Amino acid sequence: MAGKTSDYVVGVDLGGTKTLAGVVAGSGKILQQVKAKTPAEEGYHRVLENVATCVEGAIAQSKIERAQIAAVGIGVPGPVDPETGIVKAAPNLGWKKVPAKAILEKHLGLRVFAENDVNAGTVAEHRLGAGVGVRDLIGVFVGTGIGGGLIFGGQLYHGFGKVAGEVGHIILERKGPRCGCGNRGCFEALASRTAIVRDLAMAIEKGRKTVLTKAVRDGDFHQIGSRELADAFRRGDKLTVQMIKRAARYCGIGVASLLNLLNPEMVVLGGGVVEAFGAEYVRLVTRAAKKRTFAGTWAGVRIVPAKLGDDAVLLGAACLARERAAS
Amino acid sequence: MAGKTSDYVVGVDLGGTKTLAGVVAGSGKILQQVKAKTPAEEGYHRVLENVATCVEGAIAQSKIERAQIAAVGIGVPGPVDPETGIVKAAPNLGWKKVPAKAILEKHLGLRVFAENDVNAGTVAEHRLGAGVGVRDLIGVFVGTGIGGGLIFGGQLYHGFGKVAGEVGHIILERKGPRCGCGNRGCFEALASRTAIVRDLAMAIEKGRKTVLTKAVRDGDFHQIGSRELADAFRRGDKLTVQMIKRAARYCGIGVASLLNLLNPEMVVLGGGVVEAFGAEYVRLVTRAAKKRTFAGTWAGVRIVPAKLGDDAVLLGAACLARERAAS
Repeated sequence: MAGKTSDYVVGVDLGGTKTLAGVVAGSGKILQQVKAKTPAEEGYHRVLENVATCVEGAIAQSKIERAQIAAVGIGVPGPVDPETGIVKAAPNLGWKKVPAKAILEKHLGLRVFAENDVNAGTVAEHRLGAGVGVRDLIGVFVGTGIGGGLIFGGQLYHGFGKVAGEVGHIILERKGPRCGCGNRGCFEALASRTAIVRDLAMAIEKGRKTVLTKAVRDGDFHQIGSRELADAFRRGDKLTVQMIKRAARYCGIGVASLLNLLNPEMVVLGGGVVEAFGAEYVRLVTRAAKKRTFAGTWAGVRIVPAKLGDDAVLLGAACLARERAAS
Repeated sequence: MAGKTSDYVVGVDLGGTKTLAGVVAGSGKILQQVKAKTPAEEGYHRVLENVATCVEGAIAQSKIERAQIAAVGIGVPGPVDPETGIVKAAPNLGWKKVPAKAILEKHLGLRVFAENDVNAGTVAEHRLGAGVGVRDLIGVFVGTGIGGGLIFGGQLYHGFGKVAGEVGHIILERKGPRCGCGNRGCFEALASRTAIVRDLAMAIEKGRKTVLTKAVRDGDFHQIGSRELADAFRRGDKLTVQMIKRAARYCGIGVASLLNLLNPEMVVLGGGVVEAFGAEYVRLVTRAAKKRTFAGTWAGVRIVPAKLGDDAVLLGAACLARERAAS
């Protein structure tokens, strides 16, 4: 079937710091990938111009004829109206109401579809990754924050205002720590990397010892990434182990809430924290979730790590563009 | 169109103490209703025989010809597989894996469809009550416990194991009071009537004064119903007012979690507690929810009281039977 127009699409992962674009074949294989810095501080016109350049670059390098590209899909770090392609807001980019689809279509002369990045990542796991064939799936991505995506009946669920899936902002501890959103005790405020690092810093202030003390003392503990945490964890650093176990338990409580409410077949756990701590983290989350989930709801459910890593957003945006262009 | 087979259906609300059956016209009007005690202690065969008798009675009294009855829908207090019509469990009836649909079809010689009662109530509010025309709707029913139903894209969402919608068992306070389900801090353990009465009893034990003291002293405070609470509330009983306000605030936290996660267009609040405290309760819930919901998610959302009261389950079961018989 090579040569059919619908065989190829371009997927874009537009992040606050970097932009990735790749030509994706019908099989889900990424043929060519182009990476560039996102010039976020230069405004949305420049950022989207840069996206267009990346897309053109990926097409050129892939040696696929332009006429064979059915559409372009872009994953954006904020809520998006998938019909209009307007990005409602993207704090990392300083965006508010940016008509990304329209601007990119003008630049590229190709059909463009925009979607929230976490939704795109969830779709990728559903179409090509851990959740192939699953009807009802929840994606939970644990990193600096906690994002999520909801797939019901095989389709991405957007909700009334197209902002559904804020998994990180279900409330798990009414009087818990303050969240970035202003609430207290959100899932994100308890189990994200930001929460882990905050708790580490507090423990160190209270005199607890850890191999991470130096980074924290130097005042740049907010720079501690998942990798540093994972190193300390693997070296058996007591405090880090304790904090990670606690965060995984919190994540399990969040997952239990999701399971009791939505009874999905699968929960896909992704993001930097999950990748850094791997199977052990997933095991801890699963144990904590099982304890708090109805037996009937638990039966047959699978809690699994994401498979697609850093390619998920690009691939999901590509899948959605392919599907929407065909419909 | 009178006389068309599909014009009439029978809806049944099978409760732990009483059984209601009614013939329902295409308009949603209940023509005739029959009520009987549920002989729960006599086993499921007797209970379903009794349901069949109620259905036959309602048909006979309605003067509608049997041939004009398209189907029978029954709402059951427990999880149901809507395809097989097997009731997975119904603790109030002492049921486990009861093939309610098959047994009733044998008794009645009519097509029967079974559904969880809270799901049926939510469907009724969506088709005939507060939520007509809404795409994404969540029903939250606050009584002895807290139940819920989820409507996405206009359709009831069942989830993988057909047990989705346990709104009462999302966790809102990790270390909160013990819930009937064994967990801590479930929505139900914080905001149900059971929770309100528990907190009242604890406050009285600590010496707080209330007009409800006698009922509590007599040791039958678990018998305090929504009506007694509402009386004390309206008489301005300080402790009761405080407890109801707190429970409404908890309910608002639960609703905020649901909104942030699912971004529905409408939340319908029903059940004994909501009916007893009316508009003031809904106002308190709304205020607490708004404080904790993203502005973009809050935009346009409606939090409204249920409209159908005690008829909801019967009507919803009837709606679903009509739809499923036609499909």
